[in-house]
Amino acid sequence: MENKKIAVLGGGSWATAIVKMLTENLEKVNWWMRDEECIAHIQNYHHNPRYIQSIQFNPNKLNMSSDLQAIIDDSDIVVVAVPSAFLAKAFDGVEIEGIEKKIIISAVKGVVPEYNQIPAEYFHINFNVPYDRIGMIAGPCHAEEVAMERLSYLTIACQNQEIAQYVADCLSCRYINTSTSDDLFGTELSAILKNVYAVASGICNGLGYGDNFQAVLIAAALRETKEFIDEVHSIHRDVKSSAYLGDLLVTAYSQFSRNRNFGSMVGRGYSVKSAQIEMNMVAEGYYAAKGIYEINKKFKVDMPIMDAVYHILYEKISPIMEMRILTGKLS
Amino acid sequence: MENKKIAVLGGGSWATAIVKMLTENLEKVNWWMRDEECIAHIQNYHHNPRYIQSIQFNPNKLNMSSDLQAIIDDSDIVVVAVPSAFLAKAFDGVEIEGIEKKIIISAVKGVVPEYNQIPAEYFHINFNVPYDRIGMIAGPCHAEEVAMERLSYLTIACQNQEIAQYVADCLSCRYINTSTSDDLFGTELSAILKNVYAVASGICNGLGYGDNFQAVLIAAALRETKEFIDEVHSIHRDVKSSAYLGDLLVTAYSQFSRNRNFGSMVGRGYSVKSAQIEMNMVAEGYYAAKGIYEINKKFKVDMPIMDAVYHILYEKISPIMEMRILTGKLS
Repeated sequence: MENKKIAVLGGGSWATAIVKMLTENLEKVNWWMRDEECIAHIQNYHHNPRYIQSIQFNPNKLNMSSDLQAIIDDSDIVVVAVPSAFLAKAFDGVEIEGIEKKIIISAVKGVVPEYNQIPAEYFHINFNVPYDRIGMIAGPCHAEEVAMERLSYLTIACQNQEIAQYVADCLSCRYINTSTSDDLFGTELSAILKNVYAVASGICNGLGYGDNFQAVLIAAALRETKEFIDEVHSIHRDVKSSAYLGDLLVTAYSQFSRNRNFGSMVGRGYSVKSAQIEMNMVAEGYYAAKGIYEINKKFKVDMPIMDAVYHILYEKISPIMEMRILTGKLS
Repeated sequence: MENKKIAVLGGGSWATAIVKMLTENLEKVNWWMRDEECIAHIQNYHHNPRYIQSIQFNPNKLNMSSDLQAIIDDSDIVVVAVPSAFLAKAFDGVEIEGIEKKIIISAVKGVVPEYNQIPAEYFHINFNVPYDRIGMIAGPCHAEEVAMERLSYLTIACQNQEIAQYVADCLSCRYINTSTSDDLFGTELSAILKNVYAVASGICNGLGYGDNFQAVLIAAALRETKEFIDEVHSIHRDVKSSAYLGDLLVTAYSQFSRNRNFGSMVGRGYSVKSAQIEMNMVAEGYYAAKGIYEINKKFKVDMPIMDAVYHILYEKISPIMEMRILTGKLS
């Protein structure tokens, strides 16, 4: 593939980290975010005022704009790093043209709540982007550690391996190792599910379950992940790879995991609402539990951990009761 | 199976925790340890003076002795919870009779260093115990959390499922869920290997690698485990089960893991010797790295993580260099 112009959409911590990685290799990165004050701050002070302030940008490498159409027009590859809850709001209201001709790389890791679609489906169904021009970036990768330039591994999944490799090369640098995969759907579903399991892990932690139980829970979560994604999209895959198991581990065990922290608060007795207010954000796992629950109505995979989280977050079942029932289903 | 008399051999924290679990169900547990002062302390004050002092025993349920032959003579099932480094010392010097007629349940989780044998092999080859009367207890289970009565799951592996179920029933209680497996060799090897990977995880932590890399390392460790145990003993098994993946996770991630702490010290620059002196103990993973390395000379499985730990601990290769090389082999 020839040189492609790349855009990143989003102003959060993951978008910020992705722009940092890309600027290690590219002379120019197009960066869209909605908030013009934030753009001005980055242009003047060279860091994102809200997320991971420690990342310093070379302003000459950034082409920033709040005009989504202009950024998309100027780009061949569009990396979408908008939280899933805001994705449809960013795209549906305005009539963006020409998306179907772009390569879309999702870094969303959530279900689009308005449609119960994973990002790949959202862009395919609503914008006619062919599946072989849709990819995704999978971890295990906390943005905070990218900022610290701690060695991290990314997997770029795309049915078109040439695109996967091109994006992987754009992201590889001294502190980022990349590999590619053709499992777009499985990788994306697994990346979404792991946020639900991180919430489960946090809830159990908040309830006082220990490390021994945590290990049983996460092992069961990996088996549940495999059953679900094999049912939804049956291809050969090894869920013991970094993009599945690694991503699950970093989210379920790390201090940086917002989903785990959200779960911990719920486990300790906060209501879902007050945990969200306290954290001043909504964890992806909150939406993911609903999204996967809805998607699974079609596939009917036995998912006791996922169901437990859904019951706690959406049906106000007591975490103590729900997790006690769950412990009898695990082994 | 009729009522069987059970003995626990060993005075460490895991032995102490196993006795606690057994006394939840049994009227009498035979308990051997070498140290007579320690026995006297437990008889007088009802707790082990050296390990997990918080566990209080009902003295009427304990039959304690430092006479190994007497304890074995009086028992049908012998749970061996002696650290691997002391196993041959406990058995080889004295001429213990009648072991071949007993059911041996290993809780050792290490390679017997004098013979490079896993405990099942040690009892089969040196004492003629038939393999179908040898079992093992697998975690994920830190003794410290058993003491706190935090919900934990054990897997009892034995080719004879009746024995596995009997032992499982003896250990099940309010805070212990059990399952059984017929994969004696795979479970035992996996339980040994996880200590090496916990050392690896600690070394990387000590060197400053972060959570993102940790997740990649542990996912790769699970794949390495599968390759090795499938090669050594090829039966159908799911390494995503608690006894394999769960046990790996609790050891590699938990604050209670001595192997991880040992690795952390080595990663931070302690010599192996000074880390051992500082910790006042030898982590199982230290012996396991040598044992598995020797066993793998026959099987020649590609084990980059295991080899890296071996090189650091036994060939004085710098952890920085060795782990830098390893990072290039992982994905």
